[in-house]
Amino acid sequence: MTQLEMMADAELQEHYATLSQNYRNFQDKKLKLDMSRGKPCAEQLDLSSGLIDCLQPTDYRSADGIDCRNYGGVDGIPEAKELCSRILETTTSEIIVSGNSSLALMHDLIVRAILHGFPDSQTAWKNYPKIKFLCPSPGYDRHFGICEYLGIEMITIHYQSAGPDMDQVEKLVAQDESIKGIWCVPKYSNPTGITYSDSVVKRLAAMPAKAGDFRIFWDNAYAIHHLTDTPDHLLNILTACKQAGHPDRVFMFASTSKVSFPGAGIAMVGASEANINWLKKQMLQQTIGPDKLNQLRHIRFFKDLAGVESQMRRHAAIIKPKFDLVFSLLETHLGSKHIARWSKPNGGYFISFDTLPGCARKVVAKAAQAGVTLTAAGSTYPYGRDPEDKNIRIAPTLPPLPELQQAMELFVLCVQLVSTEQELQRRGLLP
Amino acid sequence: MTQLEMMADAELQEHYATLSQNYRNFQDKKLKLDMSRGKPCAEQLDLSSGLIDCLQPTDYRSADGIDCRNYGGVDGIPEAKELCSRILETTTSEIIVSGNSSLALMHDLIVRAILHGFPDSQTAWKNYPKIKFLCPSPGYDRHFGICEYLGIEMITIHYQSAGPDMDQVEKLVAQDESIKGIWCVPKYSNPTGITYSDSVVKRLAAMPAKAGDFRIFWDNAYAIHHLTDTPDHLLNILTACKQAGHPDRVFMFASTSKVSFPGAGIAMVGASEANINWLKKQMLQQTIGPDKLNQLRHIRFFKDLAGVESQMRRHAAIIKPKFDLVFSLLETHLGSKHIARWSKPNGGYFISFDTLPGCARKVVAKAAQAGVTLTAAGSTYPYGRDPEDKNIRIAPTLPPLPELQQAMELFVLCVQLVSTEQELQRRGLLP
Repeated sequence: MTQLEMMADAELQEHYATLSQNYRNFQDKKLKLDMSRGKPCAEQLDLSSGLIDCLQPTDYRSADGIDCRNYGGVDGIPEAKELCSRILETTTSEIIVSGNSSLALMHDLIVRAILHGFPDSQTAWKNYPKIKFLCPSPGYDRHFGICEYLGIEMITIHYQSAGPDMDQVEKLVAQDESIKGIWCVPKYSNPTGITYSDSVVKRLAAMPAKAGDFRIFWDNAYAIHHLTDTPDHLLNILTACKQAGHPDRVFMFASTSKVSFPGAGIAMVGASEANINWLKKQMLQQTIGPDKLNQLRHIRFFKDLAGVESQMRRHAAIIKPKFDLVFSLLETHLGSKHIARWSKPNGGYFISFDTLPGCARKVVAKAAQAGVTLTAAGSTYPYGRDPEDKNIRIAPTLPPLPELQQAMELFVLCVQLVSTEQELQRRGLLP
Repeated sequence: MTQLEMMADAELQEHYATLSQNYRNFQDKKLKLDMSRGKPCAEQLDLSSGLIDCLQPTDYRSADGIDCRNYGGVDGIPEAKELCSRILETTTSEIIVSGNSSLALMHDLIVRAILHGFPDSQTAWKNYPKIKFLCPSPGYDRHFGICEYLGIEMITIHYQSAGPDMDQVEKLVAQDESIKGIWCVPKYSNPTGITYSDSVVKRLAAMPAKAGDFRIFWDNAYAIHHLTDTPDHLLNILTACKQAGHPDRVFMFASTSKVSFPGAGIAMVGASEANINWLKKQMLQQTIGPDKLNQLRHIRFFKDLAGVESQMRRHAAIIKPKFDLVFSLLETHLGSKHIARWSKPNGGYFISFDTLPGCARKVVAKAAQAGVTLTAAGSTYPYGRDPEDKNIRIAPTLPPLPELQQAMELFVLCVQLVSTEQELQRRGLLP
């Protein structure tokens, strides 16, 4: 039972009056804060300042002697493949390093499947009357956006503490040939913060699929984005797929967007050699090659995986206090009221917050009316439709701590205000 | 009549023996030269050395105050749009500046048309039983590669001195609804070197099209790539299209691949505001934005259009002597023999060379057997099929002058050898 449900009518109305007054006070502050996206803050970007000028004008040759200024090398330079293969845990022949956007790699890969099919496809996906993807939710809005844009029907799969509901996944994938893919953010998941358990990874790798060309789109965006000294561990799904006899089932993605620069990082895709060789040929029809100088720049700046990992610790030192502030404010203001639940991730960029059912949209709207932009409610679900209208994605990294404090104080107030309104309405005390 | 046709049998056989001996001498040299692609040479790349280190670590804000290191800005930073709009002759709201590959912009645009259609399309192109593109030829092999890859049927259009055969183009476009596009390299065309006349541009803009969503893919890759002080002039096709009542008919492309670095330049697409606004929305499903730091880098290095134009004069100073050497060797060895014709372009990257019909493949093969790789014969035509087997694309920019001289001396020898073989065969003097 919520704290609100336990209040007498008069007490509840008085509580509502106080909250409303506090809300009006916030509106008077004319805040203008944006917490809508998982963007690194300026201080984090400054960590990679040296990336901007670490290349000398005469330093343009890759390890194999290629002039990185000129055309060519669709799969990236050797030293970038080496470094990125450490991040994705592949061999160097199981990886392609490309431009600045892993989202583009994912989008384009699905487009290729639609227009051409994978090597093991019976036909291009466009030739089926319907294609479906499984979408563990709450999930990443841009994944769902790609599906909606490309006309792929999305099936919402519920998240459990260690990954998607695998009973549901296995049953659907085994029986429905039109299910061609599943989106996964397997580590510090966006936004739930969970990391898939070994058992979930193994079941994804081993499950029988009715579609012979079923693929796992493994967006390991937060592979190395730890917030604590006791990071989560994620099983290598490519290895698991090979062991289960499905070596070509998975494409893995990552980027340095939240390692170096979101706008000027390098993105990577890892998969079986068969998949990678096929993908290279496909990519050669689209582009002569990625920006190899920027790959070389990353190598000069980070040097190796140890360099990347040190950088990630510096990132954590900046953003961990922001996560802690959010946890603290949530606990202080909502901790004992039973009107909300939230995640406490060991890494990643988000806190997943659940209001009482039916409150999320109103909370986000109320926050916006007082000057704080949150990620649109519903956007963590396919088609922007949260079935219970309760999930809100909190992105604490961008605002400086004082602004984050203001924004979160407003947020917890809005949660209480909307929950109280709902309780008053339930009792018929508010229209 | 060719010089060979005028020779008596014995003279021709003696000539052949001499050429064959010369060819064997070349083989003994064990050359290993690559003239297959239009790549800038190292000296040209050195012109942009300063691009590598022109940004300071604190210099990351665009003109509108955006932190170029972070996410966002799918259409590019304002100052890059300003500069690129000067190159493509558009307004700044008629342009998108993106990553390093204009080829990717073209490929992706056609993919969007196939999957979604243009704003004025009745349906996505994938819903038609067949889509066709007109391909003025000889043309750019990668354009034709995109069509072949995407299942678009190609119709070869013959080039005349001032552009494609417009009578043929107008007739086909007016009557066939499945013809949805035409590829054009309108200035210093790859490989013919011609520039479209005002009349051709106006006819392309004004011609009635049976397909309501017919598009011109205007790859202005060599817009500013002059070789002489009396450059060709190309009419602005976007203006012509607007004047003809077809403002949305054209998409124009260019890049700095042959201005700064082929591997790390910036690419651009220009079109009507309606097309650009539609394209921005489409691109946002694929990527959060391009590498804005690299755009800023280009602005700091080139400053403005005048800076770009100075750079182009420096490029010309390096590559003009290479073109001149080729012209000189062709004239000396083949000038009066009537066994070949070639272009003398005022700009661009190629010389288009026509052998006698039926000789191009053999010439390229003979050159390869003596260590010089040329662009594959046929590749300047759709499906790699040159109907007369006579066109060869000569790319003189990459090799240093002494190597270019060797390669071209071999080339003219191969042309003579193959032409002589053919004449001997015609007379029944060779099997």
